[in-house]
This record gives sequence, structure tokens and C-alpha cells, in this order.
Amino acid sequence: MASSETITAALLIIGNEVLSGRTHDKNLPHIAEKLNDVGVRLTEARVIPDIPEVIIRTVRELSTNFTYVFTTGGIGPTHDDITADCVAEAMGVSIDIDPEALRRLEVHYANSGLEINEARLRMARIPEGASLIDNPISAAPGFRIGNVHVMAGVPKIMQAMLDGILPTLKGGRPMVSITLRCSLPEGRIAEGLGKLAKAHPDVDFGSYPAWTKTAFQVSLVVRGEDPAQVETAAQAVEKLIADLGDQAERITARPGETVPG
Amino acid sequence: MASSETITAALLIIGNEVLSGRTHDKNLPHIAEKLNDVGVRLTEARVIPDIPEVIIRTVRELSTNFTYVFTTGGIGPTHDDITADCVAEAMGVSIDIDPEALRRLEVHYANSGLEINEARLRMARIPEGASLIDNPISAAPGFRIGNVHVMAGVPKIMQAMLDGILPTLKGGRPMVSITLRCSLPEGRIAEGLGKLAKAHPDVDFGSYPAWTKTAFQVSLVVRGEDPAQVETAAQAVEKLIADLGDQAERITARPGETVPG
Repeated sequence: MASSETITAALLIIGNEVLSGRTHDKNLPHIAEKLNDVGVRLTEARVIPDIPEVIIRTVRELSTNFTYVFTTGGIGPTHDDITADCVAEAMGVSIDIDPEALRRLEVHYANSGLEINEARLRMARIPEGASLIDNPISAAPGFRIGNVHVMAGVPKIMQAMLDGILPTLKGGRPMVSITLRCSLPEGRIAEGLGKLAKAHPDVDFGSYPAWTKTAFQVSLVVRGEDPAQVETAAQAVEKLIADLGDQAERITARPGETVPG
Repeated sequence: MASSETITAALLIIGNEVLSGRTHDKNLPHIAEKLNDVGVRLTEARVIPDIPEVIIRTVRELSTNFTYVFTTGGIGPTHDDITADCVAEAMGVSIDIDPEALRRLEVHYANSGLEINEARLRMARIPEGASLIDNPISAAPGFRIGNVHVMAGVPKIMQAMLDGILPTLKGGRPMVSITLRCSLPEGRIAEGLGKLAKAHPDVDFGSYPAWTKTAFQVSLVVRGEDPAQVETAAQAVEKLIADLGDQAERITARPGETVPG
């Protein structure tokens, strides 16, 4: 499915609180959909703890293997906020207070009637050569260095930062998808669906069962870069379902949008 | 924090539907909490696409680096359900129809009035030497081979499978945690909290800001294996917050449980 021109991205979720189950990550689906809108394919995601060696090693590996890397978490003022220092080390550059980041924090804290102390100063530490990512919510910026984009973990701030990043990405073609829902068991559809998958190698066919309180349903999702191919594949799935005695319900949603069930 | 006796686990979430943003993974927090209850620490999680080479390579890497590996997704009857075959290849063993898995499917489908066809037979394919993991919901078993546990992706089925796995794991000490909530900005707490983190090296201090509709709050989470050390650390945090002019609210929750805010 992924062609040689596919623009790939890896998401690195940094934080003990996600691995402990305390915090339920809500950023992955949002980032996946927003990236897809600009033709960048989320191809891997990792959740790792607040351990410097692990962060440094993983940033290096993902930066090498994917077109873009996005990190969330660990850029606040407390001792466990070590992402900026680790990314600097991973990319082999120094890190220090950045004058523009400091200026933004000074304005923000002056407006809030709070003083800048040493802890808050930490949030102005930016790796050498990085460019800042705007934080319209709470001022403390993210940054981009090489192909690595460092963002906050708080969803509202992360989303605002990502909105600023998206226009800077060089994407390929977005994936488009059509979801067809029916009540046939997967085991009845499987043979025909497998044949369709072979016959349409540029389209991705997914089958996702779900149980609602009252009924069993399968969502069949066809995805691809070429809208005409995806439409042709969707019609072939509709015919398959009709031949098996059921009727497919077409769920309209924009590419990547979550559909109930 | 992690001692040499720490029993670690990696979670491997397999599925294009998670990376596209269509399906929001709900399994990670559940698995993290359940594993912690038996003294196994979720130390990394990855989300990867339905690509055989990626699955095989990742299973090998995680199986080598962690005490236990848990996978979710890709064990149904459709063409995109390739987890069992990939895990067999990763572990260097053959895969074929397992008589006991087949028997369970035969009973299940006979009771449901459905026929076993080729697609459904796929769900009885089990790597050589693996032991079955019961599926009390829909019969098709998961399996364990070496330190790798292969489970369904549908949460209800995954949870039932995990309940069967937990008693078989050899865990260490569970992490216990105490959450203290206050209204001080992180930047005021940071210096004192950093000092406490240095003074209590066996306890993990996390700081997680959250905005509700009406208020800003920070949850300070102290976690560790020794309940007495965690209690001492929590009291030190309470004193820190009191010294800064606020009062900490102790949130009671069982270890790992998600607390609002």
C-alpha cells in the first residue's frame, strides 16, 4: 500500500503517566487525522517512559527511519520534563535558554502577574538550531529540530501547536476512505473480501467487528490515495455484501474520521 | 526507579485502524493497570501497521528486550488478520491448524448454527509449541509462545483473555501510587518537587496539569514499589504544598486507576 513517495510520520508519546494507565492518550487519533489531511501517513507510534537513555535512543531511531517525528509530553517546568534536553542530545546539539522563547515567557508571566523563576526558565531551553513552535495557549513554545517536532502533551496545547506545524509539512496525497457497515459475520465476508484485496492492490481493505448493545455489526473500510480506486473498491464491497444477502450501509465521514461502531 | 528485579512488559498494538485514527485504542490503560496489579510493569507500547515485516521485526525486538510481550489485534478470520503467522515467523516456528483450537471453534459454530469455512479455520492456526489462551466470548483462542502473548483487539475479548493470562505471570512488586491535587501552578511547585524527587530516589514524582471548565489544577502523583516510602513521599508533597500556601487534596484511587483531572 505505501508507495515509495509515501510521506511517513512516527509519533513518540513520552510519559510514565500514559504507561501506568493513569492518563489515557487522546492525541494519537487527532494527530493521525490531521497529518493525513496534509498527506502525511502516521506509520508508527510509541509510548515510552521518562528515562533519558530511552528517549534519546528512540528519538534517534525514529528520526532516521521516518520522514517526520512528532513527540508529545515532557516540556513543562518540572523535574520530570526532560524531553527538550533528551532531543538535543539525540540530535547532537547543545541546549540553552533561547532569547525569543524567553521573551514569550516574560510577556506571558507579566500578563499573568507571575514571576519567572528557575523552573519556568526551563521551558525556554531550546536545542541549538531549532525553530520555535507557537503555543497560543500557554506561551511556552515547542520546537522543531531536523525532522523532529516537539510538542506539549496536554491535548489543547498540542492541538494548537500542531495547527501551526501542519502548513510547514511537505505531504503527499492524503488517504481517503469509505466505510461500509453490514450485519454479516466476518467469517462469511472474509473469503470474498480477501479476493477483493488481491484484486485491488492499491487499496487497503479493513474489517472491524463491533458489538453494540443490541446488534453485531462489521465495518468494512476501504482506504487508498486514489479516490476513484477507493470508490471502485467500495462498490465491489457493496456488491459482495449484496451477493451474500445483506445490504451495506455507507457511513459518510471525512477521511480518517471516527465512525460510531 | 526500575530495579534490576523489575518485571517488564511491552504492549504491541497491531492495526492500521489505530494508526489511521479510526479506532481509538482503549486497551493500553486496562492492560497497564491489570499488569501492575500482578507486579508487571508496562514499560513500552507500540502501535504498528498490518505489514508482515514490521510485525515480525517488532515482535522479535520486544521479545528480546522485555520480560513479557502482549499483542492486540489481527487474529480474526479476514485477510488482514496476519498476527498469528507473523508471530510464528518471528519466533522461528511453523504454524498450522491446532486440534484443540479447532475443536473449540467447531463447538462454538455448531452452537451458533454457523458452518466452519476456510476463513474461520484461519482462527485455529496456532504456532507450533504455543499454548492456547481462552476466549470465553467468541471461542477463537489467543495463544502464548515463549514470552509473547497474542490477544484479540476487541476490548471485551482482550479483557477476558487477559484475565486468563494474569495468574500465569510471574510478577514482582506492584507499583502503588498516591495522587495529590492542588491549585498551585506547576512553576511554583517545580523547585520543591525536584528537590523531593532527588531526596526520594526510589519514588517517582509526576506532575500533571489539567484545566477543567472552571479551574486549573495540578495532580502530583507519587509512585513506587514500597507503600511506606510512597506514603512518606506523599506527606512530604503535602507539606510542600502547605508551605506554598495551598492545601493538597488526596485523591483515593486504587493503584494505577485514572483519577478525574
